[in-house]
Amino acid sequence: MKSFIDVAPTSDFPIQNLPYGIFSTQPDGPRHIGVAIGDQILNLAEIADLFDGPELKAHQDVFKKCTLNAFMALPRPAWLEARAKIQQLLCENCTVLRDNADLRKRAFVAQSAATMHLPAQIGDYTDFYSSIYHATNVGIMFRGKENALMPNWKWLPVGYHGRASSVVVSGTDLKRPVGQTKAPDAEVPSFGPSKLMDFELEMAFFVGGPENTLGTRVPIEKAEDRIFGVVLMNDWSARDIQAWEYVPLGPFLAKSFSTTISPWIVSIEALRPYFVENPAQDPTPPEYLRHSDPFTLDINLAVTIRPEGDTEDHVVCKTNFKHLYWTLKQQLAHHTVNGCNLRAGDLLGSGTVSGPEEGAYGSMLELSWRGAKEVPVGSEVRKFLKDGDEVNLSGVCDKNGVRIGFGECRGRIRPADI
Amino acid sequence: MKSFIDVAPTSDFPIQNLPYGIFSTQPDGPRHIGVAIGDQILNLAEIADLFDGPELKAHQDVFKKCTLNAFMALPRPAWLEARAKIQQLLCENCTVLRDNADLRKRAFVAQSAATMHLPAQIGDYTDFYSSIYHATNVGIMFRGKENALMPNWKWLPVGYHGRASSVVVSGTDLKRPVGQTKAPDAEVPSFGPSKLMDFELEMAFFVGGPENTLGTRVPIEKAEDRIFGVVLMNDWSARDIQAWEYVPLGPFLAKSFSTTISPWIVSIEALRPYFVENPAQDPTPPEYLRHSDPFTLDINLAVTIRPEGDTEDHVVCKTNFKHLYWTLKQQLAHHTVNGCNLRAGDLLGSGTVSGPEEGAYGSMLELSWRGAKEVPVGSEVRKFLKDGDEVNLSGVCDKNGVRIGFGECRGRIRPADI
Repeated sequence: MKSFIDVAPTSDFPIQNLPYGIFSTQPDGPRHIGVAIGDQILNLAEIADLFDGPELKAHQDVFKKCTLNAFMALPRPAWLEARAKIQQLLCENCTVLRDNADLRKRAFVAQSAATMHLPAQIGDYTDFYSSIYHATNVGIMFRGKENALMPNWKWLPVGYHGRASSVVVSGTDLKRPVGQTKAPDAEVPSFGPSKLMDFELEMAFFVGGPENTLGTRVPIEKAEDRIFGVVLMNDWSARDIQAWEYVPLGPFLAKSFSTTISPWIVSIEALRPYFVENPAQDPTPPEYLRHSDPFTLDINLAVTIRPEGDTEDHVVCKTNFKHLYWTLKQQLAHHTVNGCNLRAGDLLGSGTVSGPEEGAYGSMLELSWRGAKEVPVGSEVRKFLKDGDEVNLSGVCDKNGVRIGFGECRGRIRPADI
Repeated sequence: MKSFIDVAPTSDFPIQNLPYGIFSTQPDGPRHIGVAIGDQILNLAEIADLFDGPELKAHQDVFKKCTLNAFMALPRPAWLEARAKIQQLLCENCTVLRDNADLRKRAFVAQSAATMHLPAQIGDYTDFYSSIYHATNVGIMFRGKENALMPNWKWLPVGYHGRASSVVVSGTDLKRPVGQTKAPDAEVPSFGPSKLMDFELEMAFFVGGPENTLGTRVPIEKAEDRIFGVVLMNDWSARDIQAWEYVPLGPFLAKSFSTTISPWIVSIEALRPYFVENPAQDPTPPEYLRHSDPFTLDINLAVTIRPEGDTEDHVVCKTNFKHLYWTLKQQLAHHTVNGCNLRAGDLLGSGTVSGPEEGAYGSMLELSWRGAKEVPVGSEVRKFLKDGDEVNLSGVCDKNGVRIGFGECRGRIRPADI
C-alpha cells in the first residue's frame, strides 16, 4: 500500500503506521489532532466530516478537540473505523484528498513547521517493572545474586503509581533535580543536585475505551479493547535520590521531576504485524493473567546520547521490546483486577526494557554497572548523565519490507538551580 | 460572629468555618459550588456577581464552574477575599442576602436535599507517611523494634504517588477488592477477595494557587500560598494484597480500589485559630524543610464502625491531627524541591494519623496489632473489616467556644465480585 504523499524509505511514518498526535502551527497557537504521514501531518479537524461510518458519524466532534482523550474514549470499533478511513483517504488511488487542492492545502502541515504537544490529558500514570533482565540486574546490584528477583515478581506484573503532572513531550528540556541523598558511608544525608542522573528506556501505552466503573475489572479477554496505542518513554531517574528516599513506599521525587514521551501514538492495529510469541512464563501465572494469543511486540529499541556541543547522537544501548516478561494485556488486566478504574488518557509504562546482553541494558545504572564501568559516548565516556547531555530513544518495527517507527523521544538535561 | 442562618451548636458548619464543596440538587443534575452554613448550602453561582473586590471582580466566572479547580487556581489573596465576602454576606447584620427573599430562595439549598460530589478534578494524588506513631507501629510489626523507623524517615517526609481516579466522595460504597495474596507459610500465592480489609484515618489537603512551572520549587516560606484547604480521608487498604505486592516499588492495588474523602474543604483561614506549636524535630531537618511558625493543627479525630444492620456508629479510635511529625508546609516544600509541578486540585494525604496510646491508632492493623487482639465494635468484635461495615471519620476543632468540623467521611464495604 502506498500514499500519494511522498514517504522516504527511512521515514517512521509510512501509510502502514498513521500514528496520532497533537500539534500546533505556533507554539502557543490552537492545538489540533494530527496523523503523521511521511514528513507531513494530516489535520483531522479539517476532514472531520469525512468520518461518516457507523461508529463515527455521530462523533465527528472528537476530531476537533485539542487532546485525544475524547477519541480515545470511544470504543475500539471506532478506532478501527477511523484508521481504515484515514488509510483509505491517504491511499495513492483515492482522489478525495489527493485531487482537492484547496482541501489538501488546509489539511496538511509540514512536521518541520509544527510544534508537538502531549497527545492527551493524562489522568493517572502507572509504571510497571516488567523486564526480567532489568529487574534481575538491579536486584543483583542492590541485594546480591541470590535475592535478585523479589518473590512476587514472576507471579504478577509489579507496578507503582507515578506522577502525571511531570510527563512532558519530546523536545522539552529538563532541569537536574536537587534533593536529599546519602552516601553509604555518610552519617547524615546531603542536600544538592543529583549526581547520578539516569535515563530509563521504556515504552508506554495509552488507555482508551469506555471507563470500567470503579469496582469492576477488565478481564484479560477484553484487555485489548482498552489499549489505544503505544509511545516511547524516558523515565528519567535520579539514582542517588531514589536510593535514599524509596524505602519503604517506592520511588517518589527521584522520578517526578520529568518523564518524557514521544508525541506520536502508534495504534495497536499498526503494530499487529509485529506481534510475536509471548515469552514462556514459569510459574504459570494465575488464571486472570493467562492468554495464549501472541501479544509480545518485536520493536527494535535504541538509546543515544549527544553531549553538549556535539552534533551527533551516539548509541549506548540497543535492545528489543520483546524482552518484556509481562505483556501489555497482562499489565492492564492486573491493574484492574482489584476494581481500579482506568480512564481514557491514562498512561501505563512498561518499566525499563533491558535485553540479556550488556549492550542491551536500558539505563546507565546497568550499562555502567552502578558506576563500575565507563560507557563510551562518542569521544567521551559516561557513568551517569552530565548536564548538557541530550538523550533520544528510538523504536522501529521492520518486517516483510514494511518499516514503521515511533519518531523521537528526546530531552536535554539542564544544570540544577540551587 | 453569628449568621442569620440558624446554626445548631452541634453543627460542623458555623459562620467561622465556611467550607467549600460541589453539590447538585439531583444526583445527575448540574453541579455547583456551595458553602456549608449550618444545615444549608449557599450556592455561589447565584451570588457570583457579589464578589466585586479587587481580586475577584474579573474572575466571577470561577464561582459558576462545576469543580473548584478554577477558584483554587487563583492566588491566595483571592481565597481570602472570597472568604471575607461570604462571611460578611452571611453575618446576622448584613441585609444583602438576609432581606432579599427571592435571592435567598435561589441561593440556599438544604444539605439534606443535596448530593455532594468530589470537590475538584484531582490531577495527581500523593500520600505521605507523616505520623511517627503509625510508622513506628507498622515498623515494629514488620521489621522489629530495632529497625522500626527506616533511616530516611526523620530526614524527609516519606511519601508516594497514589491513584487519583479511585478517589471517591463520602457516601460512595466500595467493593472488597480481589487480588493475589500469600500467607507467610504458603508456597505459592492465592487468588481471591482480600481477607484483611482496613481503613486508614487520614487528612488531606488540596493544592491551590498558580502552578509552579516544572523545574521550579516552592520554598517553604511560600508553601502556605499553595495550601487551599483540608478534608478528611480514608485510605482504604487491603493489607494482605499490600504485603505481597509492595516490594520493592510500594503500594499499588492494595490502595487503588477506593480512597474516600469528605466533601467539604475547610480552608486554612478557618483553621488558623487551631494552629499549635510544631513537634520538636530531632535531627533538625535540612534547611529547605525548616520553618518556625506554628503550622501543626489541633483537630480531634475519630473513627467509627457501623456493622451491617446496626443503627449506631461505634467509636474504635480517637486521636488528634497534631500527632503528625511533618507539617503540611514541609510536605509541600519537600514535594517540589526536585522541581515537581503541583497543580490546583492535586490532593496530598497526611498518611495514617496515629497517636501515642493504643486507642489512638488510626488503622485496624494497629488497633488489632496485626490481628493479635480483638477490637470491640458495639456488641461485636473485629480484627479487620467485614462486608457491610460502614466506616466514618470525623474531625472537630474546638477552642474558645468556637467549634468547627469537617462533616462526614463515610463508606460501606460491599462483598467482592469473584
